[in-house]
Amino acid sequence: MSSNNVVGFDEARRVAIFGGTHGNEMSGVTLVNLWLMNSGEIQRRGVETKAFITNPKAVEKCSRYVDTDLNRAFTTENLSCPSGKDLPYEVQRAQEINTMFGPKGSPEAYDVIFDLHNTTSNMGCTLILESSKDHFNLQLMNYVKKAIAPASCPVLLNEDPCLKYATVRSVAKHPVGLEVGPQPQGVLRSNIFEAMRIILKHALDFIELFNEGVEFPPCTVDVFKVSERMDYPRDDNGNIVAMVHPNLQDCDWEPLTPGDPMFQTFDGKTLPYEGVGSVYPTFINEAAYYEKQQAFVTTRRETLAANAIRKV
Amino acid sequence: MSSNNVVGFDEARRVAIFGGTHGNEMSGVTLVNLWLMNSGEIQRRGVETKAFITNPKAVEKCSRYVDTDLNRAFTTENLSCPSGKDLPYEVQRAQEINTMFGPKGSPEAYDVIFDLHNTTSNMGCTLILESSKDHFNLQLMNYVKKAIAPASCPVLLNEDPCLKYATVRSVAKHPVGLEVGPQPQGVLRSNIFEAMRIILKHALDFIELFNEGVEFPPCTVDVFKVSERMDYPRDDNGNIVAMVHPNLQDCDWEPLTPGDPMFQTFDGKTLPYEGVGSVYPTFINEAAYYEKQQAFVTTRRETLAANAIRKV
Repeated sequence: MSSNNVVGFDEARRVAIFGGTHGNEMSGVTLVNLWLMNSGEIQRRGVETKAFITNPKAVEKCSRYVDTDLNRAFTTENLSCPSGKDLPYEVQRAQEINTMFGPKGSPEAYDVIFDLHNTTSNMGCTLILESSKDHFNLQLMNYVKKAIAPASCPVLLNEDPCLKYATVRSVAKHPVGLEVGPQPQGVLRSNIFEAMRIILKHALDFIELFNEGVEFPPCTVDVFKVSERMDYPRDDNGNIVAMVHPNLQDCDWEPLTPGDPMFQTFDGKTLPYEGVGSVYPTFINEAAYYEKQQAFVTTRRETLAANAIRKV
Repeated sequence: MSSNNVVGFDEARRVAIFGGTHGNEMSGVTLVNLWLMNSGEIQRRGVETKAFITNPKAVEKCSRYVDTDLNRAFTTENLSCPSGKDLPYEVQRAQEINTMFGPKGSPEAYDVIFDLHNTTSNMGCTLILESSKDHFNLQLMNYVKKAIAPASCPVLLNEDPCLKYATVRSVAKHPVGLEVGPQPQGVLRSNIFEAMRIILKHALDFIELFNEGVEFPPCTVDVFKVSERMDYPRDDNGNIVAMVHPNLQDCDWEPLTPGDPMFQTFDGKTLPYEGVGSVYPTFINEAAYYEKQQAFVTTRRETLAANAIRKV
């Protein structure tokens, strides 16, 4: 399976688009609800695309989750424990979703799942990749990046076992996260809505072409690989004592170099970045990550090689 | 009490600064918590300034409220009903706050209450005035506007009995709302934090000068008077079918003229504004107002005359 050889994949016949994994991220909730009423826009020849609200109770409450974060719930432990009404709602829901779209890791699992998210960070349109070895997804992301150019669509690679988490989309053979921002929780902005819609259009076009037998030649994909989680500065009681520095706020994907301002304390002091070498922060000041003790993640740039692919 | 005469007011000796009326509006929560630990910044000669978290349970949950909106709870009915554990949490809290800082409408009430809010709308720093006859507040707002110029600080007047609501700050003789945005719920942005802090500084300076006997000459204050609440377009089932149009999004305080784009339907149609004459929309696409069926409010510009004031 060298990079000069063509890798064969089965047709991607079963595709799902998930919205409402976090019930207050309104672009995905709204798009999926629209497509549940009228699925014309997401249908392609040779593909069965299913739109699906993953966390309907959280959507109803317009909150991120009810009991626990659904997008961290797809662990082997949760998926294999005896089901029952006493489990947290999102664990019950994870088991149901795994039955419908999985089982995770099995040949019966859905081919592709797109999971639609919003962020309060200034990340633009971001595709999230869970494995640098997934040549199907690398080709899909390369296709989308080229289709929307000159608009930008960074790829965030999160495959470090210590940093990645058990996502809803991980049920699929090819999990694709889509994160679009900035958009406040509970708000629907037309620019973010349209940006997400266009990414989905191109991604589905790619799957249709693949299923029709188009061979995609080898390519390279520039990615931002998650490197480290950065917490806010805190006092001895765990209270946050500084904010993201104005020079860093909204500067997702831009280089942060040792000595650059990183935080600003409430009494006006600047705390610089003191790591090694330049990093590229993202998820800067994401609302949902305060409870996860995370001010932003640092990433490092890499170029991944994707093999040629075609259907077998 | 003609506009050429000087109106006398008692010294404004008792002043409160409220944060956390909505538990996910982080600038006020953070500033008030800072000032509870160290109140030096908000102390002025001849003024007793008390920082206070109004809805601690909502702050703990980082949600707008627990049972009901505290900033709509200060009705005569709520404040006079028999207290008890079976009342909604925020009604109990309203009664406690009314006892501590009121009673509302009585001579014992606090002189000035500043209530600190954030909005997801692009409103900048906005002062909210509850009565066009409150010459003390008109002078305070005129002072703040001049102090921060050339930065802008619009005054929103909400005194129409059908549109105004029973705010927490209405307990005071001179209630001042401060609304700063854009900031997502649950997020603390340094620029918004600093903007709010500066407004408070100038407002407290004004009170100190007033208490020292400075006479403030007659002036005029340009205000935006709340005129109408606009809902999102909906289908027969009450579901939203359109978003704020990109030409209107983020354009708080800019004129909206009949024929101008107002909403964009999910299938791409533009719905224009069809009212009479130009209006100035604000609270455009505020997250918390989806549940109140409000996409924005329209305002009309007025110039109010403030009498000269000095302490009696």
